[in-house]
Amino acid sequence: MVTVGIAGASGYAGGELLRLLLQHPEVEVQKVTSKQYAGDYVFSAHPNLKGLTDLTFSAESPEEVAARVDLLFMAVPHGSSAAVTPGIVEQGTRVIDLSADFRLHNPEDYPTWYGWDHPAPDLLEKFVYGLPELHREEIRNTRNVAVPGCLASSSIYSLAPLAKAGLIKGSVLVDGKIGSSGSGNKASAATHFSERYNSVRIYSPTGHRHIGEIEQELSLVAGTPVSATMSAHSVNMVRGILTTSSVFTDGQIEDRTLWKAYRSMYRDEKFVRFMMNKDGTYRYPDPKLVVGSNFVDLGFVMDQHVNRIVAIGAIDNLIKGTAGNAIQSMNIMMGFRENEALMAAPMRLV
Amino acid sequence: MVTVGIAGASGYAGGELLRLLLQHPEVEVQKVTSKQYAGDYVFSAHPNLKGLTDLTFSAESPEEVAARVDLLFMAVPHGSSAAVTPGIVEQGTRVIDLSADFRLHNPEDYPTWYGWDHPAPDLLEKFVYGLPELHREEIRNTRNVAVPGCLASSSIYSLAPLAKAGLIKGSVLVDGKIGSSGSGNKASAATHFSERYNSVRIYSPTGHRHIGEIEQELSLVAGTPVSATMSAHSVNMVRGILTTSSVFTDGQIEDRTLWKAYRSMYRDEKFVRFMMNKDGTYRYPDPKLVVGSNFVDLGFVMDQHVNRIVAIGAIDNLIKGTAGNAIQSMNIMMGFRENEALMAAPMRLV
Amino acid sequence: MVTVGIAGASGYAGGELLRLLLQHPEVEVQKVTSKQYAGDYVFSAHPNLKGLTDLTFSAESPEEVAARVDLLFMAVPHGSSAAVTPGIVEQGTRVIDLSADFRLHNPEDYPTWYGWDHPAPDLLEKFVYGLPELHREEIRNTRNVAVPGCLASSSIYSLAPLAKAGLIKGSVLVDGKIGSSGSGNKASAATHFSERYNSVRIYSPTGHRHIGEIEQELSLVAGTPVSATMSAHSVNMVRGILTTSSVFTDGQIEDRTLWKAYRSMYRDEKFVRFMMNKDGTYRYPDPKLVVGSNFVDLGFVMDQHVNRIVAIGAIDNLIKGTAGNAIQSMNIMMGFRENEALMAAPMRLV
Amino acid sequence: MVTVGIAGASGYAGGELLRLLLQHPEVEVQKVTSKQYAGDYVFSAHPNLKGLTDLTFSAESPEEVAARVDLLFMAVPHGSSAAVTPGIVEQGTRVIDLSADFRLHNPEDYPTWYGWDHPAPDLLEKFVYGLPELHREEIRNTRNVAVPGCLASSSIYSLAPLAKAGLIKGSVLVDGKIGSSGSGNKASAATHFSERYNSVRIYSPTGHRHIGEIEQELSLVAGTPVSATMSAHSVNMVRGILTTSSVFTDGQIEDRTLWKAYRSMYRDEKFVRFMMNKDGTYRYPDPKLVVGSNFVDLGFVMDQHVNRIVAIGAIDNLIKGTAGNAIQSMNIMMGFRENEALMAAPMRLV
Repeated sequence: MVTVGIAGASGYAGGELLRLLLQHPEVEVQKVTSKQYAGDYVFSAHPNLKGLTDLTFSAESPEEVAARVDLLFMAVPHGSSAAVTPGIVEQGTRVIDLSADFRLHNPEDYPTWYGWDHPAPDLLEKFVYGLPELHREEIRNTRNVAVPGCLASSSIYSLAPLAKAGLIKGSVLVDGKIGSSGSGNKASAATHFSERYNSVRIYSPTGHRHIGEIEQELSLVAGTPVSATMSAHSVNMVRGILTTSSVFTDGQIEDRTLWKAYRSMYRDEKFVRFMMNKDGTYRYPDPKLVVGSNFVDLGFVMDQHVNRIVAIGAIDNLIKGTAGNAIQSMNIMMGFRENEALMAAPMRLV
Repeated sequence: MVTVGIAGASGYAGGELLRLLLQHPEVEVQKVTSKQYAGDYVFSAHPNLKGLTDLTFSAESPEEVAARVDLLFMAVPHGSSAAVTPGIVEQGTRVIDLSADFRLHNPEDYPTWYGWDHPAPDLLEKFVYGLPELHREEIRNTRNVAVPGCLASSSIYSLAPLAKAGLIKGSVLVDGKIGSSGSGNKASAATHFSERYNSVRIYSPTGHRHIGEIEQELSLVAGTPVSATMSAHSVNMVRGILTTSSVFTDGQIEDRTLWKAYRSMYRDEKFVRFMMNKDGTYRYPDPKLVVGSNFVDLGFVMDQHVNRIVAIGAIDNLIKGTAGNAIQSMNIMMGFRENEALMAAPMRLV
Repeated sequence: MVTVGIAGASGYAGGELLRLLLQHPEVEVQKVTSKQYAGDYVFSAHPNLKGLTDLTFSAESPEEVAARVDLLFMAVPHGSSAAVTPGIVEQGTRVIDLSADFRLHNPEDYPTWYGWDHPAPDLLEKFVYGLPELHREEIRNTRNVAVPGCLASSSIYSLAPLAKAGLIKGSVLVDGKIGSSGSGNKASAATHFSERYNSVRIYSPTGHRHIGEIEQELSLVAGTPVSATMSAHSVNMVRGILTTSSVFTDGQIEDRTLWKAYRSMYRDEKFVRFMMNKDGTYRYPDPKLVVGSNFVDLGFVMDQHVNRIVAIGAIDNLIKGTAGNAIQSMNIMMGFRENEALMAAPMRLV
Repeated sequence: MVTVGIAGASGYAGGELLRLLLQHPEVEVQKVTSKQYAGDYVFSAHPNLKGLTDLTFSAESPEEVAARVDLLFMAVPHGSSAAVTPGIVEQGTRVIDLSADFRLHNPEDYPTWYGWDHPAPDLLEKFVYGLPELHREEIRNTRNVAVPGCLASSSIYSLAPLAKAGLIKGSVLVDGKIGSSGSGNKASAATHFSERYNSVRIYSPTGHRHIGEIEQELSLVAGTPVSATMSAHSVNMVRGILTTSSVFTDGQIEDRTLWKAYRSMYRDEKFVRFMMNKDGTYRYPDPKLVVGSNFVDLGFVMDQHVNRIVAIGAIDNLIKGTAGNAIQSMNIMMGFRENEALMAAPMRLV
């Protein structure tokens, strides 16, 4: 039995981690922290978990918790992890960080995408980018994982095979659609139901911070620098991501070339599905079909009118896009069954 | 390992059963039938289950399947179960029937609520009404279970303590709100998205067929005939039920009397939660907090202005309202852990 | 041309008033006030109105505005109107108050339903309850109108014919379902999209403040005290109300008696529709069919199982439930065509 | 007073036309046709219009109706208009065709985008493409208008200024998001509420038929061939379109250049708004802000990371994308006020 803690456990990512970990047979969640809810039962912040745990939130610092557990999940806001995580790594506690603070390997990418200088640039190389399907071996051999961004995950999963096959030449263009849970639990005028309902909001037409991750990972897979950009939209739902990515090519690429690229990369992956049907309601990936699960659904089409590959990815942003990959990384790192606590089938009818 | 079959497995109830049973460690789903999808993979009808099973739909009759499995789930339309189930019971195969055909004990209730005479009235007494929290012992000792209706389940769970405490005098009035999945997977003008979205449709202002079940069960608990009626509405969501029931009383009932009634009935029940909070976003039961789980959330309030107890129940109509209670009944009947395959925590963020 | 002002025009009710009044050929909106948005263009608070008006918000007090216009709409919070409106009435400016502060005629009802003593009890009798179909003559002859509450409006419209026909004996029970816009534009944890979406929240199981209005008006129509209570729910939509009300009767009431009661009251009303169809998708009132319009749709059914009349009402809470009735009252009071600026057909497909 | 008919009036486009035309002071709707609803009141198909018109559906053919009215709106399915419209044009009746059958000027585009040869290729040059802001003078001088496709409209409005300014070099890429009403009123498995709700469905990753219109119009404006492609998604709402288009440029384009391009084209247009705000909830176009109106909202951003202009457009697909442009074209053609019957302000709170 491995003991774990969750720092910043009152947020949506923390709640989702907890929801999944409570069913993990090899894990004991020992500490969950929250300043706002210190002393309260977990169900104060996560009312869905009532009856499932007697845990209460602790006001302890991440460092204090780290001293008492085998592994610490950091679910604190972007920017604040970088301040405390170095000390925890120093202590020797395993860290799985859900923030953006250790995802980028090149320190210079932090001012570019996040607007601040990284306080612990030397630590960046000690963190593995936690997309298990791309970095399984490194995860097995590390003690520190940075969980990828949700929009980045869907984009990278759907584009990596094309990068590996050398099919990406110019800039990749991602059009992302995401549910409201991706922006967290803090109420604001913009998230007020009457304003957010039925909206299709292009909240980040350019400059989305996940572009940095996407370029990093696609470049690694391609073995050569890959350029990418994104326009990100919030749509009228709570959970789920669809990314529609365009890769402009020199000519028409044959279907079998594309199939080969995707199959060779994901053939044995349990959590990757190809959603490519000639007919029926669901011909391509749709977040509706992955919500509640750790699946990533992939699809692709060659545009006959313009030389463009359309690469489609769908995930549950809180699972495969956050807590699921965090747990899958933990499972790999700790030598558990890789899909432990992650085998829930998608709900579909929600 | 118990072998089971599901007759009528291409519908929503069948799909939900399958989704849950695929994770049951003591159960092997051996046969799933569907005329429409005969020969097709399960994911043709349930695309969310892609990658989780290699089963294909069989065109076999329920009787043929029954001959080869230990237990048969009947997920066929109301009215058609009554025609074939008698033969299966005769064969000796255990049956858990999700249709309405064996829920009512009194044969005369079928013409009243369903408009047809029951073809096998003698069999009605052999079926236990599968609300596990009310009929656990009978379920343990039967081979035949009739799974309750979804709106009936939420109503009965929330009203049974009041019936038992002798607090129900006149007619109980249930106002039900249910998501679209309750009406099945058949497309129609009324379920066309553009018409159904944003609607609040009173599809059954009077005469809802579940009233018969509610009266039967509340009368049994009360030990005296209880009268009930219901107005049922479909609301803008796919999954979930809220029932708001009114019990008119002779005077004001004290809170502690109500708490005592509810606690004495459900104190040790793992799947029953009281959702009663003085403040916060979720003060009373809300389907949002149970969706994806087998929980039933209950709450109650005494109306100070009129002598009326408001009894509130929330369930996931496809789990605690259908497939979950079916599996819980199976677990009890077969001597498995009662919550096997049913411990998924509610999703909340959907 | 009549000049009007709107005090508190940055809220949802104020915005809806403005949206409608901008198209009124006999009205010039001269002043709109808002402390928060003082000096800003109207589209800062109501971005939908961009391009439709050059008005800016003024920081003037309601009294100052009243001194310069023929008629003042008060769209300020409940409780704050009572403090300033007496002075305005004194000035002689016509007032149409959208708050609750002058709806109840009996001063003693304020402590009961609102928890405070009314500061100007003598003024209550000078305000007409602005349900035009029930109080047209009084509106024509007054200078002061109190616009009814939205849930109260739907309830009263659907129940008044039964009250008038002497069919209401015991307590009327209203089950209300309302969209999010009814709770205004202030963001909070409870209105955060991720929490509010897909919820069915019983926010007021008992003690809803509109009960006072309902009892007042039904008693007036009945000519005898009528008792009422309500359970109010917010559902997954922004705009619209459905009320399902139960009236318990001594025996079965014939359909023609019910038709007669409803027709005799509303036969010549342009904004009242009977939505009673034997088949089709829309058999009874549904807010989806009135949204965007000043219609109230009504329906009724006799329960054959229990002696109960089900009375159904649907309105757009921001129009027939607020701004529409305010304008209709103004039209009557000022001698304009009663439906001026109110003839927009329902949108349906939203 | 101009008399008009609507052929195919029971569909969503026909219903929206009717909803708007009923309020047009210069128009009398004399005939509405529908085979399915022949003899029935209009409210049988459009229940929202109950109480607003006594019209009944006629089974007459479009030709018969054309013989009796000044102007005929053709709201029949794509492909069937081409068969009958030539005869009507021959008769001399004005035609405003909402189908795709006369949008493309080059007969060879029909096999490419629609898969059939045009039966009346000579007639194509007699139809004006009814985007009033681009073809006002031609509309004024024609008797035949082809109403643009909805996704095409939003795309063209947002891209035309860039085309005119010579800023489009390579292929334009449009990512379209549309509500369910765009696919009409015919129920199917794919539009079944339980399947369609919460989905983000890429129904046309490549090959969308509106690409032909977009290329035609952008090429005309640019004075040189423009290439375009599109990926189209249906999202979880009924009404509204957002298009996010990418124009790849040789270098960074200055904001003032972009502003100049957009302003010079749309400066005096009443139905075009720029939705570009530095802060607030609505910084860019959002269908939520145009629904219910004839506005098209536009925005643009220069991507600093990749040389790309993001051009954003939002419309109500049934108004500015269909019935609104049809009526605006009629108003121009008949010499009415251009905005007659089109001045409804956006609803926002739906």
